Amino acid sequence: MVPAMTTQQRPTLITVIGGSAAAPPALDDAYQVGLELARRGAVVVCGGLTGVMEAVCRGAKAGGGVTIGILPGHIPDDANSYVDYPIATGMGYMRNAIVAKAGRAVIAIDGAYGTLSEIGHALGEGATVIGLNTWRMSVDGVEDTAIIRAVSPVDAVDKAMAVAESKQARV
Amino acid sequence: MVPAMTTQQRPTLITVIGGSAAAPPALDDAYQVGLELARRGAVVVCGGLTGVMEAVCRGAKAGGGVTIGILPGHIPDDANSYVDYPIATGMGYMRNAIVAKAGRAVIAIDGAYGTLSEIGHALGEGATVIGLNTWRMSVDGVEDTAIIRAVSPVDAVDKAMAVAESKQARV
Amino acid sequence: MVPAMTTQQRPTLITVIGGSAAAPPALDDAYQVGLELARRGAVVVCGGLTGVMEAVCRGAKAGGGVTIGILPGHIPDDANSYVDYPIATGMGYMRNAIVAKAGRAVIAIDGAYGTLSEIGHALGEGATVIGLNTWRMSVDGVEDTAIIRAVSPVDAVDKAMAVAESKQARV
Amino acid sequence: MVPAMTTQQRPTLITVIGGSAAAPPALDDAYQVGLELARRGAVVVCGGLTGVMEAVCRGAKAGGGVTIGILPGHIPDDANSYVDYPIATGMGYMRNAIVAKAGRAVIAIDGAYGTLSEIGHALGEGATVIGLNTWRMSVDGVEDTAIIRAVSPVDAVDKAMAVAESKQARV
Repeated sequence: MVPAMTTQQRPTLITVIGGSAAAPPALDDAYQVGLELARRGAVVVCGGLTGVMEAVCRGAKAGGGVTIGILPGHIPDDANSYVDYPIATGMGYMRNAIVAKAGRAVIAIDGAYGTLSEIGHALGEGATVIGLNTWRMSVDGVEDTAIIRAVSPVDAVDKAMAVAESKQARV
Repeated sequence: MVPAMTTQQRPTLITVIGGSAAAPPALDDAYQVGLELARRGAVVVCGGLTGVMEAVCRGAKAGGGVTIGILPGHIPDDANSYVDYPIATGMGYMRNAIVAKAGRAVIAIDGAYGTLSEIGHALGEGATVIGLNTWRMSVDGVEDTAIIRAVSPVDAVDKAMAVAESKQARV
Repeated sequence: MVPAMTTQQRPTLITVIGGSAAAPPALDDAYQVGLELARRGAVVVCGGLTGVMEAVCRGAKAGGGVTIGILPGHIPDDANSYVDYPIATGMGYMRNAIVAKAGRAVIAIDGAYGTLSEIGHALGEGATVIGLNTWRMSVDGVEDTAIIRAVSPVDAVDKAMAVAESKQARV
Repeated sequence: MVPAMTTQQRPTLITVIGGSAAAPPALDDAYQVGLELARRGAVVVCGGLTGVMEAVCRGAKAGGGVTIGILPGHIPDDANSYVDYPIATGMGYMRNAIVAKAGRAVIAIDGAYGTLSEIGHALGEGATVIGLNTWRMSVDGVEDTAIIRAVSPVDAVDKAMAVAESKQARV
């Protein structure tokens, strides 16, 4: 007999988004986020390429965690070396919408335009976005406050895990 | 004999993005943008639903223009009444990425999260975005200046058409 | 005042699918299908490239019709010369799923693998597929009879328009 | 230091496709395929729902393997109970194109229309499809021979693993 997994037993997927060409401080943050997510037993979902995506996967693997990369191209081996499970979509940057949806919460680090599209998708579909030195947006001089701001990688992971757990409890 | 169309003969597609629940000033702007695009012979591409999408199509039809709506759902008749050609994708809000790419320039009005995802997709893929009272974004206190700001609907159309023509000339 | 379009006034979109490297008999059929669709006032939706896609657009333009091409790539001008409205999706052959859904009926000509994926998508979502010398499929020796077979281009258009009209009447 | 994974170290993803309402013989085959893939260390990628998708995941978990489900909807918990990593795409059955691409080889069992779309996508993009009592297709009376036929679940896994290994060796 193979026991079925209940939602509580299934690992929690957390999406981490950020630019492929981010600067060292953002990469350090991403590494720490990955490490901390792995320590809590969460699975990292990201875009699978370089920069923040590679740093968060490297951190997660250092913490003994699992990483999934949703790639824009056709070739699984385009994934960075710390992605366990590369999903080659061949759908270009439209894959950002899948990355944004795949986790139970989204941690956004730094600010590339792809990250902005992912923030828009996530907020538009009611997902929770935790921001770590990422985009701030306003319309008509009024700042949008939907992104929950974190002050450190550990704070970002704390907030993301709290959101994910409250969602799972509700299921 | 049916003569082939050259790029110069094909009508220019311009994407217009904006929220489904925008307020009257944005709807008026959208209507004027649609009207002005139609007068220049441009085809409006949008998300096909309500709010800014409906207003821009209504304006385009008042100007004798053509409108295409890229819908998130499965049902062509979910398009607003001013869409000539509804494309039902069934792919949800991921269709935003197609809307963002379909025009030779993008005019963004007002600020829903879906609009933000479309701005992110457009800028991330090197498209030109003209903004009319839409999102402003910053990272680390530095405002991003990629969006070209317009001061009126006619100014937005002027700028979008100039971009589209320079792109077509380069082909 | 701009009158809203009712469903009955909106032109009927019919999808035509077929290979990019089809042989002359299939191209002749596609041309005749496009011509006949245009004569009935239907709009042709296709994948926008060569082969059957180009032939059906050429036929439609010869008949004074309108053509929409849903492209796999990023560049509108990759569309064949008879596409009025190119939609560049950048999502690769995944765009087949949109092509399959966009029309109120699907006419399949000849048999490339992309056509097979479109037939699968269309039948899987309950769309009607009219086949003109296209794929036949079986499982365990039992032929699948979901595709409505046509004996000529005019017969294919007759059957597609009948399906489209019955769908519109039901709305 | 975290060592990077080379392609050889990364687990091999194999896609398994088949209907959500398949009959018991197909479900037994799917279970055996999953079990055998897990024994070889391969990771199962599938559509994440019921029928063949659930049976192959159940088999993989019985063999101590890992399973990924690419879901059409928005809700991770719609995945069957044997999916370790659910990827909720929200893109409907268009997700079939991702499922078809994600593995280094595709094993097709039984014959739903969704399976047919996945076979079309896989063959159209040059992927190898191993068939176990699945669709046979012909055009103009000529049977298409692109699907490699397997005579048993173990034979299907043998053939899929051979393809996957030859692809990885070439990278």
